Amino acid sequence: MRERRCDVAVIGAGLSGLRAALTLHEAKRSVIVVEARERVGGRAHTVRLDDGTAIDLGGQWVGPTQREIHATLCELGIATYAMYDAGANVLLRRGRLHRYQGSIPRGVGIFALASVGLSMLRLDRMAKGVPLEAPWQAARAAELDALSLGAWADRHVGLQAARDLLRVAGLAVWGCELDELSLLHALFYIHAAGGLDALISSRGGAQQDLIAGGAQGVAEAMAARLDADTLELGQPVRRIRQDDDGVLVESDALSVRAARAIVALPPTLAGRIDYAPALPPRRDQLTQRMPHGAIIKCFAVYARPFWRQHGLSGHAALPDSPPLAVTFDASPPGDGAGVLLGFIGGRDARAWAARDPETRRAAVIEAFARVFGAEARTPRHYVDHDWTSEPFTRGCPVGLFAPGALSAVGEALRAPCGRIHWAGTETATVWNGYFDGAIQAGQRAAREVGARLDAS
Amino acid sequence: MRERRCDVAVIGAGLSGLRAALTLHEAKRSVIVVEARERVGGRAHTVRLDDGTAIDLGGQWVGPTQREIHATLCELGIATYAMYDAGANVLLRRGRLHRYQGSIPRGVGIFALASVGLSMLRLDRMAKGVPLEAPWQAARAAELDALSLGAWADRHVGLQAARDLLRVAGLAVWGCELDELSLLHALFYIHAAGGLDALISSRGGAQQDLIAGGAQGVAEAMAARLDADTLELGQPVRRIRQDDDGVLVESDALSVRAARAIVALPPTLAGRIDYAPALPPRRDQLTQRMPHGAIIKCFAVYARPFWRQHGLSGHAALPDSPPLAVTFDASPPGDGAGVLLGFIGGRDARAWAARDPETRRAAVIEAFARVFGAEARTPRHYVDHDWTSEPFTRGCPVGLFAPGALSAVGEALRAPCGRIHWAGTETATVWNGYFDGAIQAGQRAAREVGARLDAS
Repeated sequence: MRERRCDVAVIGAGLSGLRAALTLHEAKRSVIVVEARERVGGRAHTVRLDDGTAIDLGGQWVGPTQREIHATLCELGIATYAMYDAGANVLLRRGRLHRYQGSIPRGVGIFALASVGLSMLRLDRMAKGVPLEAPWQAARAAELDALSLGAWADRHVGLQAARDLLRVAGLAVWGCELDELSLLHALFYIHAAGGLDALISSRGGAQQDLIAGGAQGVAEAMAARLDADTLELGQPVRRIRQDDDGVLVESDALSVRAARAIVALPPTLAGRIDYAPALPPRRDQLTQRMPHGAIIKCFAVYARPFWRQHGLSGHAALPDSPPLAVTFDASPPGDGAGVLLGFIGGRDARAWAARDPETRRAAVIEAFARVFGAEARTPRHYVDHDWTSEPFTRGCPVGLFAPGALSAVGEALRAPCGRIHWAGTETATVWNGYFDGAIQAGQRAAREVGARLDAS
Repeated sequence: MRERRCDVAVIGAGLSGLRAALTLHEAKRSVIVVEARERVGGRAHTVRLDDGTAIDLGGQWVGPTQREIHATLCELGIATYAMYDAGANVLLRRGRLHRYQGSIPRGVGIFALASVGLSMLRLDRMAKGVPLEAPWQAARAAELDALSLGAWADRHVGLQAARDLLRVAGLAVWGCELDELSLLHALFYIHAAGGLDALISSRGGAQQDLIAGGAQGVAEAMAARLDADTLELGQPVRRIRQDDDGVLVESDALSVRAARAIVALPPTLAGRIDYAPALPPRRDQLTQRMPHGAIIKCFAVYARPFWRQHGLSGHAALPDSPPLAVTFDASPPGDGAGVLLGFIGGRDARAWAARDPETRRAAVIEAFARVFGAEARTPRHYVDHDWTSEPFTRGCPVGLFAPGALSAVGEALRAPCGRIHWAGTETATVWNGYFDGAIQAGQRAAREVGARLDAS
């Protein structure tokens, strides 16, 4: 058992943990980051194909109002580029293709469109009433939390076609069925993003820009600014002990003694660590109640982005054609390869996670072909990634609250437990669930710990 | 690291794990039971007061249709006795006491009574349609799973007074608010018990009989029938490895090699073990989605059960007088001490778990006094037990499904993962959540493993 000492032990080398570590490092605190995987980045995971094309298997976009991640990108000198969005989007519904512009598909009929628009307005208006620091203190919090977003939609969204589009949005945003999600949590999440349109939009929204070289580069660049021996990779943390003198963070082979710890893991993973003494009841009940959604990201790489020549943006919505729910153009910048990205989410992701890779590949490519034409049938490369299988994430994109949980145990989300502090995008109050939230949460945790260290 | 070998490693020495172990032992299989606590019994936990009075801090009752636990009690020669239920029950509502007979309080007005009765009939009728082996295959499973029991009640139970009574029933049965619970799961649970009346009733139902000497005695008697070296107490299991040759179950100090393992823990705890290789996605998504309810059990011990002389049964419902939701007469048999038992559940349990023990004691005793009179103010002993604080349970009485989860991931509840099998009352198809279900699940897991061992 190797033993080390520092001021602050950070558990998890995702964007949130690394941001916390870097901020503390800049404040001259000694930090050790203990990470389960052999790589940094967490849910930011970039692989390179043989031809050098960077593929973001995990989170990938940044958007215009995401100030925290933009400040970090700027500091690190990392560029972004606009995702291709010229041309028409496509809706595939009841076997027919419909072209449309903007974030809400036509082809569902004018009444369904109006219904979707009205629902979005309603959700946005309700969302503004949910306090970002304490959603559980919203007016009528218990009442909003008692309903799932799906039950709300059943009641307030008249047309099935409109509800189907909301489901597709939910699959892409949360990786879950609308019935799994608390209305209160959905409203908080919408408010934290600045509105539903910001969540689901490409241009002007959360899917506007891609990160040059891939999102994992952000983590790598932060890690490179830390002292050489800061990072401890391949060390899944098993136990965190604390007493009046400090904390002891233990993996199987490493023991780190520190004044304080920042756990920058999704709550459902943080809850698997053995804490001594045991954490307070509300905190444990929280980590029992914040499961991940399920997403499989699927990429087909072509010599060129051929769909652009047909006047298509690469963005499509497929409300009734599983496995895919939505697609995007995730091509690298410039004139090189074209990359189609498809999302399988929620119950489809759980079903397709269990099927063999070849069957999945065939179904996804067939879906691309139905939307973008026969050329889609012959990709140079295909790769997909099932986040529910990742031992150190076990779902994606983000921890969620089912009905009844946020108002019951939400208070425990950020409340430090003695010398243990909580980061991770799930604890963010802006752009919760996104890189931006991860960075904000890391900064906040670093400030929280810094102030305690200064005071002691 | 001590190393041991056996045919089957059982993780968890609750009633389910011990039943599995004993059944395998009787079939001449070698078994080792690895238990985190320094005692057997799990959620059956009996303490003895100075005067010898047995107090069941955890599960305590058995009912007439619970064949599995009765067969085990009979085999072990353990007696039961009827909980005292003569005299009137009491409803405390809006500051007034109302006496009533049976399981449904009067004092809420005739319309509310009718509304409660009608709701129960409806729930029972719907429950019969939910297949016990596969609730997720019920007709309209997704639809039933999309609603919380609370949302269903808001829609179908007209009067607030009636909904308040259902909430109290939910607090006592599940330790949660109705909004936290999937309607589909509630219907399954009702069906597994044989009806809603069976769940909430004393005489003729789940709260009919108490176990002589306390419920933990059942676990102790089963343990006594195993070989002397079967039980490994104080060994929290950290890791389970499996390969083609068998399983390796590891605590910090012990390593058990076996052909197969039975994990007899609540899913939310089973999910905290490190499995190598990692478990399939759906299984992990399940353990992320089956949190425990929250219950604090509170006992006041008196020289005599004085309330009986006032014509009271000791059973009361307190829909609007937190902290207590319901009370019972948990006195030992015979003419000795009188014991009042009160339940704090759901949001009240989470709030009161965080308060200091003296404040909690005072509030509970005051509640007993309001219902049963001034004599309740001077108990000989007071003891309460917050199950959300127990590191090796972290909630009570049972793992639950929030809306959306059972239909999504329920399939993974009993499906073996390679050489790992699942027991625990959460996997039962009759009396899920009760001792009876724990025994059934243990027997089923033992059969499952026995058949595999015979075949190999």
